[in-house]
Amino acid sequence: MTLHLDGEPVVVTAGAGLFGEALDAQAVARVPVDWRPPLPGTAAALARILADPRRAAANATAVARLVSARPRLVGVRPAGEALGLAPGTFLHAGPPITWERASGPLRGALTGAMLLEGLAADAGDAERRLAAGEARLEPCHHHRTVGPMAGVVSTSMWMFEVRDAEHGGTSFCSLNEGLGKVLRYGAYGEEVLTRLRWMGDVLGPVLAAALRLGGPVDLRAIMAQALQMGDELHNRNRAATSLFIRELAPAIVEAAPERAAEVLRFMHGNDHFFLNPVMAACKAGADAARDVPGSTMVVAMARNGTDFGIQVSGLGDRWFTGPAGVPDGLYLGAYGPQDANPDIGDSTITETAGLGGFAMAAAPAIVRFVGGDVSDATAATRSMYEITLAEHPAYQIPGLGFRGTPVGIDVTLVARTGLLPVVNTGIAGRVAGTGQVGAGLVSPPAAAFTAALDALAEAAAPC
Amino acid sequence: MTLHLDGEPVVVTAGAGLFGEALDAQAVARVPVDWRPPLPGTAAALARILADPRRAAANATAVARLVSARPRLVGVRPAGEALGLAPGTFLHAGPPITWERASGPLRGALTGAMLLEGLAADAGDAERRLAAGEARLEPCHHHRTVGPMAGVVSTSMWMFEVRDAEHGGTSFCSLNEGLGKVLRYGAYGEEVLTRLRWMGDVLGPVLAAALRLGGPVDLRAIMAQALQMGDELHNRNRAATSLFIRELAPAIVEAAPERAAEVLRFMHGNDHFFLNPVMAACKAGADAARDVPGSTMVVAMARNGTDFGIQVSGLGDRWFTGPAGVPDGLYLGAYGPQDANPDIGDSTITETAGLGGFAMAAAPAIVRFVGGDVSDATAATRSMYEITLAEHPAYQIPGLGFRGTPVGIDVTLVARTGLLPVVNTGIAGRVAGTGQVGAGLVSPPAAAFTAALDALAEAAAPC
Repeated sequence: MTLHLDGEPVVVTAGAGLFGEALDAQAVARVPVDWRPPLPGTAAALARILADPRRAAANATAVARLVSARPRLVGVRPAGEALGLAPGTFLHAGPPITWERASGPLRGALTGAMLLEGLAADAGDAERRLAAGEARLEPCHHHRTVGPMAGVVSTSMWMFEVRDAEHGGTSFCSLNEGLGKVLRYGAYGEEVLTRLRWMGDVLGPVLAAALRLGGPVDLRAIMAQALQMGDELHNRNRAATSLFIRELAPAIVEAAPERAAEVLRFMHGNDHFFLNPVMAACKAGADAARDVPGSTMVVAMARNGTDFGIQVSGLGDRWFTGPAGVPDGLYLGAYGPQDANPDIGDSTITETAGLGGFAMAAAPAIVRFVGGDVSDATAATRSMYEITLAEHPAYQIPGLGFRGTPVGIDVTLVARTGLLPVVNTGIAGRVAGTGQVGAGLVSPPAAAFTAALDALAEAAAPC
Repeated sequence: MTLHLDGEPVVVTAGAGLFGEALDAQAVARVPVDWRPPLPGTAAALARILADPRRAAANATAVARLVSARPRLVGVRPAGEALGLAPGTFLHAGPPITWERASGPLRGALTGAMLLEGLAADAGDAERRLAAGEARLEPCHHHRTVGPMAGVVSTSMWMFEVRDAEHGGTSFCSLNEGLGKVLRYGAYGEEVLTRLRWMGDVLGPVLAAALRLGGPVDLRAIMAQALQMGDELHNRNRAATSLFIRELAPAIVEAAPERAAEVLRFMHGNDHFFLNPVMAACKAGADAARDVPGSTMVVAMARNGTDFGIQVSGLGDRWFTGPAGVPDGLYLGAYGPQDANPDIGDSTITETAGLGGFAMAAAPAIVRFVGGDVSDATAATRSMYEITLAEHPAYQIPGLGFRGTPVGIDVTLVARTGLLPVVNTGIAGRVAGTGQVGAGLVSPPAAAFTAALDALAEAAAPC
């Protein structure tokens, strides 16, 4: 690139960074403009939505509700009681799906849940019954619930119950089992079922009693602190889990002195224990932001292991889906990409609420778990400011000068920039019964966002 | 600055950064050389020490011992038993000092310790007896011990006992009382004494029993983790305290089910609880590095509230002192700089071991406590690489790409660069009985380092 000008050149650079950097190297002043090509084929829909006079105020309302939620952990209860779940009904992560289209880990988790509930004699029997349509499958999201990975919830499982003290909503998430061979990653062996039974017999009731004595627990306060302690609250929850344990430990002792040690040891053994309260907290905030007419803000991103789906505030309960991708990351032991199932789980509710992949700059150590280096983590967060409506007032990143996390994904900004949300996630083995094989980063399918964009255009009010 | 040359200029820049930056602005290539003016009057001593043929190997040995220590918390015991401390003998922070030269907070803490031990009828009586020389004052450091702030230890106080599994040494530190009106900050009112009695009656024995059941605790592992969770382990110990609580909680419950809740509640109420095990851990490593002939590495930095003193590996137990400075930082409530006592405490053992001020880049959130902004914290750590002998193999900073913390202060590097160690610290009220008034940063007096340098020159072997 050569410039022959009489005066000082004034250069505006956009798009690929290479030209701009070449000018920098020649000490030529330039004005960088953040412009990227929009998603192909979105121009007409974008024009219509951007002309919708409701949009700006609707998005301001939606994101204000999302960030002002004050989620508090108020109890722990069995799913049958808390959600009115009938035996034979199973909740699962992501948008609606049938047994026929379900991936290995979801099938494995459903098989395990059938065994746990005593609805099948063995794994083969469970699979036959599931294939015969004897079980009813419904998305967690349709029941104010989120579930990590396969996200399977059955009547006897105990659930975290979170109340949004600002808007009054309630949300639920199951209790975290730990790592390795666990139901949510599709394992269903005897060790899995034994642990789930202990969780129902001991962990759930003890936590419930502790919360009656020492609750509610201010989740927003713990989450804000944890972001200053190296968590991004999706794949790294070590700080939050630690803060949760130390806050609840005295009440656990007082509520159940004879079971307290084993409960505290179980929680201590699992750095992801607090992921599930985080997910319920994010769900409470996202649900408070639903159903704002004209809003283009995403209120759910979720995967069932086959499809990646999103829901949008201004579009009610409709799902917009595309094929779930396979995460790119680090694998455990001898596992490799050939063992990986496509992206699965409701844990993308964290990214929906400005955490997880969006908050990776707060968690430089996470690159040891999901791959990449520290500058990648910072770059991921920085890029998410381009597709979000706000910076979170309470969830701040010290390394970025206490800037709030990017929060409130705007479908129109995704379409205009072509930037897809950054998601970091665990990777499930694709064969039912395997368990976790790794962790990494994944992009949602652009198709989910373009489908939502088309629906928003159809629903747009005339200007 | 104007350069008229035929070819491309090759410029070497050193010293003040301004000239170099001006060249950068003109896109002139330069080779920056890290050179700063040495401390005045040190040239002759430096020349003699740098010619000492023992120096390089001695420093390699000393710093290798410092960083290879494997401190483990093995027990909690009363000072009288653990240290053979006689009634009427009191340990204090920093180099040796008399009552006459002692500052307000040290006098306050000694007064409180006299009352705690039943050696005086009231505060006035205690002060008269102390002024009359009825008590024996000795530095903690002379008893394998470190104490935060005033650092006063008396016979009935319970102590963390740390064993270095690599080199076999043992070190001690008192139990942390919490913040506000506490003995170590010079307060000695009834609430202070009541808490100390509870710590002796309940906290110490319960922790001792828990460690017998669930110990030892690997302090190196907790400290390495905490650096990845936003602690620098001097003024920010929230992550380490949390990790310590969750690790020890099950054993606390099993060892003392009826007192576990109050002990866990006390630990949870104090984010600095783990500072004291950290200090003992650092002391164990620094003591392992003592007495290497020819080594110019600092093995202790400590302040008694009047003097700042250092000890050097190659110079035995000699202290080299200068006047303690007043920290510059943030004040609590209505307190201001006029209320601040000069720098006090043995907690600079953390900086001696490559933590605290040296590890601030790991703890961006600490700037909310000690002042400055996040870039100051990073700059502090970066500058400390210039005066240290190694990067710690286990204590890493994620935000610097997992670089090890700068560790092993070399007196000759301090003299050559004029860079003094960065210390971050709590600030005690200067009036006895006040307590903590703030937290901030402080520089040690250059005189302590030039005095040590002169002694090293005298002791240098001929080349």
